[in-house]
Amino acid sequence: MRYDKILLEHGAGGLLMSELIAGMFLPRFDNVYLERLEDSAVFQLGGMRLCFSTDSYVVDPLFFPGGDIGSLAVHGTVNDIAVCGGTPLFLSAGFILEEGFDTDDLEKIVDSMARAAAGAGVKIVTGDTKVVARGAADRIFINVSGIGVIHYGGTISPRSIEPGDAVIVSGTIGDHGAAILSARQEFGLRSSILSDSAPLNLLVESILKVSPAIHCMRDVTRGGLGAVLCEIASQSQCCVVIEEKDIPVHDGVRGICEILGLDPLFLASEGKIVVFCPPGDAKRVVDAMRSHDLGRDTTIIGNVCEKGQGRLVMNTSIGGSREVDLPTGELVPRIC
Amino acid sequence: MRYDKILLEHGAGGLLMSELIAGMFLPRFDNVYLERLEDSAVFQLGGMRLCFSTDSYVVDPLFFPGGDIGSLAVHGTVNDIAVCGGTPLFLSAGFILEEGFDTDDLEKIVDSMARAAAGAGVKIVTGDTKVVARGAADRIFINVSGIGVIHYGGTISPRSIEPGDAVIVSGTIGDHGAAILSARQEFGLRSSILSDSAPLNLLVESILKVSPAIHCMRDVTRGGLGAVLCEIASQSQCCVVIEEKDIPVHDGVRGICEILGLDPLFLASEGKIVVFCPPGDAKRVVDAMRSHDLGRDTTIIGNVCEKGQGRLVMNTSIGGSREVDLPTGELVPRIC
Repeated sequence: MRYDKILLEHGAGGLLMSELIAGMFLPRFDNVYLERLEDSAVFQLGGMRLCFSTDSYVVDPLFFPGGDIGSLAVHGTVNDIAVCGGTPLFLSAGFILEEGFDTDDLEKIVDSMARAAAGAGVKIVTGDTKVVARGAADRIFINVSGIGVIHYGGTISPRSIEPGDAVIVSGTIGDHGAAILSARQEFGLRSSILSDSAPLNLLVESILKVSPAIHCMRDVTRGGLGAVLCEIASQSQCCVVIEEKDIPVHDGVRGICEILGLDPLFLASEGKIVVFCPPGDAKRVVDAMRSHDLGRDTTIIGNVCEKGQGRLVMNTSIGGSREVDLPTGELVPRIC
Repeated sequence: MRYDKILLEHGAGGLLMSELIAGMFLPRFDNVYLERLEDSAVFQLGGMRLCFSTDSYVVDPLFFPGGDIGSLAVHGTVNDIAVCGGTPLFLSAGFILEEGFDTDDLEKIVDSMARAAAGAGVKIVTGDTKVVARGAADRIFINVSGIGVIHYGGTISPRSIEPGDAVIVSGTIGDHGAAILSARQEFGLRSSILSDSAPLNLLVESILKVSPAIHCMRDVTRGGLGAVLCEIASQSQCCVVIEEKDIPVHDGVRGICEILGLDPLFLASEGKIVVFCPPGDAKRVVDAMRSHDLGRDTTIIGNVCEKGQGRLVMNTSIGGSREVDLPTGELVPRIC
């Protein structure tokens, strides 16, 4: 390991997290399921293809415009399953609570999880609660793991990406990150930005219905669209080219980014996916996505060029072109 | 809720945890899988019976005689699956790390998880890492969720328990709790007690092979044998009677309990199961368990009496008899 202490950046979805996974977890846990580095593990079990995913949620503040740690936790895991082509079915909920945490707040969070689960058509079937002494955890952390069934026949993976593929994003990016930042009192920001936290399984279903050959899908979370595309470019060994001017960014998000000196490309979303599909399917996919409430602002933002070098290139709004790298700093700690 | 703040006892496996589950989680998540309140959720998926379990691990200290948070996390979830009659197959690992945590310690913990997984014949196939700022979590918390397949035909559940059933425990109780206590410097204890943390799936398999009619199994964790038996008695609506003199307790554990004024009945184990089986199967089950390395000290400690009132009665070593209730205090915080 390059560092002898864990840094915030090790959890930020950028370069250091990649290094932690590649240097610490992969060689030790060492198996073909984990190696794929997808949002879910995919395996056969008695004739069925299942996917299995886990995420811990440590977002701060717990309640933010457009959601809370409870809804975020359910949506996040549901989405990790959905982008692997899975129909999410069963979730677990593991709570780590700090002694002294308000039971009223816990009630609101659990209510919100229940509503989010009902909204996504999944059931929370098993759970665990641990309580640690005051000061040993910050109020509440939630782990949600989930199981889904994959009915889709194809292989949704960066490895399926081909030169020529269209790169499609389901709407404005960075809304969740901006909502969290504006909810943090230390910045003194006022904004009407809501987190986009939402369950994407139905949106994904509508895509799979119209395109029998989706190559890759990912939900945009930590690290933002930029980190997701860098990762996919690297895993696919293809050059991914995107057009800055075509990337949908809410005016309010752009404003917050300007004030704080952040790049919306690396700001988290929690209700957006990026899709790679053959160019011939692109129009059908975009139409299907736009007809869905959570994909109204779907846009083609780029395409895939030659194979051989996994890198992300952005043609900028002012006419230049630059290579985009995995972010190295931590833009917004505890974003999810 | 009876309290407006979360107390340490809400995570202790006793009465307040029961109340939290019954008052907070069950009515909101509301589904038949969760309602069973077993160690794993059990469901059918394409002709197969699967089980799914989750546990977060917050043990302190991270390294203790006989194990560490990594091996404990793998064993704990493997055991939750095993006692539902499942063959554990796939695990997830969700890490919450405190900024500044030693990567050397993380390496040791991940190594230990990998060894524990290999020892139990399971694979860690998916994961997640979050990092929170210094002071927002105590070093490292790990969630391990898991999936298993149930090949066993019967229904392993407190509801299957019948009057006459033998109550069998696989060895000495309280070893894990005593090891954690003796590893905590504040008590200034010296002892050679090792945690009994171990994967019980092969022991369980050997039981299922010889008894086609196991009624119920549970691993003994938080709250100790006493809490597990109280819960089972309540869920089975049967009176469970145990003999104090027959309960195996290591001399060192008894010593620590005497010094600290604790009852070994409520001290955690992490490598012991309690089994309920028809009296006719008891000898076969005990023999099978004793022939397994992790069941060498298997003992029949009691039996099940009339149905109608779920309660636990202990015939004491000095010739009396008393009803045992779910513990109300927190004996040892962050035991697992």
